[in-house]
Amino acid sequence: MSGAAEEGPRRVGRPRADRLRPDSGRPPREELLAAAAELFTVRGYGATTTRAVAERAGMRQATMYHYVAGKEDLLAELLESTVAPSLALARTLLADSGRCAARRLWELCRSDVLLLCGGPCNLGALYLLPEVGGSRFAPFRRMRDELKDAYRALLGGTHVGRELAGDKAGLALRGDLVFGLIEGVMLIHRADPARPVETFAEATADAALRIAGVVSPR
Amino acid sequence: MSGAAEEGPRRVGRPRADRLRPDSGRPPREELLAAAAELFTVRGYGATTTRAVAERAGMRQATMYHYVAGKEDLLAELLESTVAPSLALARTLLADSGRCAARRLWELCRSDVLLLCGGPCNLGALYLLPEVGGSRFAPFRRMRDELKDAYRALLGGTHVGRELAGDKAGLALRGDLVFGLIEGVMLIHRADPARPVETFAEATADAALRIAGVVSPR
Repeated sequence: MSGAAEEGPRRVGRPRADRLRPDSGRPPREELLAAAAELFTVRGYGATTTRAVAERAGMRQATMYHYVAGKEDLLAELLESTVAPSLALARTLLADSGRCAARRLWELCRSDVLLLCGGPCNLGALYLLPEVGGSRFAPFRRMRDELKDAYRALLGGTHVGRELAGDKAGLALRGDLVFGLIEGVMLIHRADPARPVETFAEATADAALRIAGVVSPR
Repeated sequence: MSGAAEEGPRRVGRPRADRLRPDSGRPPREELLAAAAELFTVRGYGATTTRAVAERAGMRQATMYHYVAGKEDLLAELLESTVAPSLALARTLLADSGRCAARRLWELCRSDVLLLCGGPCNLGALYLLPEVGGSRFAPFRRMRDELKDAYRALLGGTHVGRELAGDKAGLALRGDLVFGLIEGVMLIHRADPARPVETFAEATADAALRIAGVVSPR
C-alpha cells in the first residue's frame, strides 16, 4: 500500500464508534480498501457505490469519509498497491549491479507475478478501467512506467541487452514483450486456480528470459 | 461478429426513420456496436447507458431496441468479435495437419495480435469486466476456451509438444504462457501507438515460439 494511507486533512475529527460489523482488527482504512477490492473486482467499479463500500467495511458512509476521500481514492491506492512492492524490489535489484543482470530480471519477473496473481482479488482487472486515464491516477501510471523502465534497464544489462545497445527500438520491444507477458499471465492464471502460484511465477520468469533471448529455449 | 446479428424477434416491426445523425452508410446494428465499443472502452461499461449508445449511434433509444436487446447484448457481441476470427483461423490451421505445426502456431499468434491490437478501440479491456462472468457471456467464454485449446493443440503438434506428450501439465503451462503473452501484449501495445502493429504482431509471434521452446532464443 502506498504512503497515501498516512496523509490527509480528512482525518480531522474523530469518527464515531459506529462499526456495523464485528471488528476484524484491521485499521478502518485497510478495511475499506479490502471491501473496495472485493466490490470493484466482483461487481465492477462503475457499479459500486461508496455507500456499498462503507457497508461492506462495516461502517457508515459518513464515517468512511474520515478515512478516504472517495471511490477514486480507494481505486488509486489499490492500483498503486499492485506496483509499489515490485517497484521497490526493482530499485534494489537495479542498484545491485554486482550481480548477474539476467538473474535479477528473473527475480523481478517471479516476484511481480506472485504479487499480481496472488492475493484474494484480481486487482489487475482494474488496470483496464477507462477511469484509470484520469488525473487522480497519474501517480499509478508513473509508477507503472517506472517499473516498465526498470524491466528494460535490467534487460539492457544482460549480455543480449549489451549486444542490442545500439538498437534502442529492438531493446524496447523485447522489454515490452517481457512486461506484456508478466501482466498478461494475470489474465489467465485465475482460469486454473489449482495450479500453485509459486510454480506459475517461476515458469513465467523462465519464459520471460526466453522471450528476452537471454537463455536457451529449454 | 457472431451470428447473433441475424437473430431475433426484436426485428419485428419496422423502425421509424428517425436517425439523428447523417447516415454513415453502416447498418443500424453495426452503428450501435461501433458506438458501444467506443463508449464502453472510453467511458466504461458501467458508466454507459443504453440511451448514450443510441444517441452516439444517431438514433432514438426506442429505435435501438429494434436491433439489440440491450447493453449486455452489445457487450457480448463485441467480445465475441475479438475471438471469432482467430477461432475460425485456428480451426483451419488445426485441420491443415500437413504443414509444420510451429509455423501454424506462429501464424495464429500473429493474426490474433493483429486482431486484438488493431481496430479503433481497445476491446481487450472489456475482457476483465466482472460482468463477463454472467450467463449472457457463456458463449464468449466458450469461444475463448476453444481458442486456448487450439493454441495448446498446435503447440502439442510441434517437436517440443511431442516430447512433452506425457507431461500434460507441462504442456498446458506452456500453452497458457503463450496465450497469456498474446492477450497480455494488448495491455501494453497502446502505450506505444507509433510502433506499427504488423511489426509488433510478428515480434510477439516470434516471442511466443521462444516461450513454447520451439525455436532458439534469437
